[in-house]
Amino acid sequence: MIQNGIHSILKNNPVIPVATINNAGDIDNQIKKIQSAGIKCIEVTLRTDFALEALRILKSQNIPDFSVGVGTVIHPDQINKVKDIGVDFIVSPGLTPKLAQHLKQADIAFIPGVSTVSDIMKGLEEGFTFFKFFPANLFGGINALKTYGQLFPQVTFCPTGGISEQTFKDYLEEPNIISVGGSWMLK
Amino acid sequence: MIQNGIHSILKNNPVIPVATINNAGDIDNQIKKIQSAGIKCIEVTLRTDFALEALRILKSQNIPDFSVGVGTVIHPDQINKVKDIGVDFIVSPGLTPKLAQHLKQADIAFIPGVSTVSDIMKGLEEGFTFFKFFPANLFGGINALKTYGQLFPQVTFCPTGGISEQTFKDYLEEPNIISVGGSWMLK
Amino acid sequence: MIQNGIHSILKNNPVIPVATINNAGDIDNQIKKIQSAGIKCIEVTLRTDFALEALRILKSQNIPDFSVGVGTVIHPDQINKVKDIGVDFIVSPGLTPKLAQHLKQADIAFIPGVSTVSDIMKGLEEGFTFFKFFPANLFGGINALKTYGQLFPQVTFCPTGGISEQTFKDYLEEPNIISVGGSWMLK
Repeated sequence: MIQNGIHSILKNNPVIPVATINNAGDIDNQIKKIQSAGIKCIEVTLRTDFALEALRILKSQNIPDFSVGVGTVIHPDQINKVKDIGVDFIVSPGLTPKLAQHLKQADIAFIPGVSTVSDIMKGLEEGFTFFKFFPANLFGGINALKTYGQLFPQVTFCPTGGISEQTFKDYLEEPNIISVGGSWMLK
Repeated sequence: MIQNGIHSILKNNPVIPVATINNAGDIDNQIKKIQSAGIKCIEVTLRTDFALEALRILKSQNIPDFSVGVGTVIHPDQINKVKDIGVDFIVSPGLTPKLAQHLKQADIAFIPGVSTVSDIMKGLEEGFTFFKFFPANLFGGINALKTYGQLFPQVTFCPTGGISEQTFKDYLEEPNIISVGGSWMLK
Repeated sequence: MIQNGIHSILKNNPVIPVATINNAGDIDNQIKKIQSAGIKCIEVTLRTDFALEALRILKSQNIPDFSVGVGTVIHPDQINKVKDIGVDFIVSPGLTPKLAQHLKQADIAFIPGVSTVSDIMKGLEEGFTFFKFFPANLFGGINALKTYGQLFPQVTFCPTGGISEQTFKDYLEEPNIISVGGSWMLK
């Protein structure tokens, strides 16, 4: 089944902390904040030189019932690298035909990003039904997802981008929103 | 000619009522509202299990000078189904290369959806010049269509999404807007 | 190198005047305004019948240290025409796989347009790293480019669309914005 595995990860984690980690010290600090918020996953963005090492450390810690994901995956080469590390899920900010092909072959839970109706339709043609909606606040926010819910009842979204401690619960009340991504709990 | 037929349908119908029909009772109710508003077409969305049956009933009624269209068409299979029913036009919320290919082969009036400049450029490469701009209110509204009018003088738009009884006339004053879609007249 | 040449043009021109020229009289008028603003380039949009002739005249004037570009390029045929005229750079409002292919083969400085994350990712797969962000004000403005800067540190933007004398300096303060396009100095 395509996108096998991402459903349970999102279902178990209504909030996905998106973390940018620059050094080993950041890891303990962020994990502490995440766990004290009762959250059981992390999405480490591939935006720093230290990100892959951070993922290795996090996986080696074997935190019980904790999912370690990777974000900002935009290139097929990155998929192989993070798969070797054993990450639990992959998040992409957008989608291209090439990336879709590699994600499907990777045998790892993943969620690709979409911004527009045509993005969603292209993803559906690839067999995907779970999408990151990004950047949520700049592409219509909750109103867009209400509209997309009418068009695509089979699609489940994880909006990310500009979502805050004040607004995330409103998003989660929508029936087609399973989780939200954000960094407010890491501040 | 590609998109043959959609021009006259849009030209004759500056307002396209977008209807979600759940049962036979809805049909009479909606048609009454549409006709009392002086409108001569309906776009039935494929968002309910009853939608195809609603289209069959509507076509069998043979309402004089009345066009029966179908909306939310996102999959090639749907094109064949609604073509067999004899619908007068097809509306898609977005566009993919695959859907474009099937729409061109279907020999039926259609209008595909676009949200961005690249969407429009891809549609132009397919030979399309009539586009649904959707969701209009979330992607720049009238301001976007003013900008796109400067870039693409050969393109005609039917904006849909968040357009109301208060705003639809402003849209129709733009030279590159031939019709607007909405549901305000069905309330 | 792909996109060879566009870097120096953008670096030398933090402001790109986007001009729509209808006749020979327009040219002198616009060039005077541009030069009195201390700007050393012009982007002539292909939105008028006179545009190609305007480009020919501008190139024949051989204004010292002045770059003559062409905008609103959406079709491969246009690339050959403006290349024959000897324009210094090409600007496209969006991107398609077909246009990307022809731009890469044209051996001329160019910058394609993007609106969304997936647009940027498709451009990166083509080997592009300089993008026009358009229409900037309708797709998140500076906030979008701050977000895209975190995702794509290798990408440099020239936002255009709704940027004014009041706002262009704010855009130029962002590290991933090299230039802005606009028409306020031509008013």
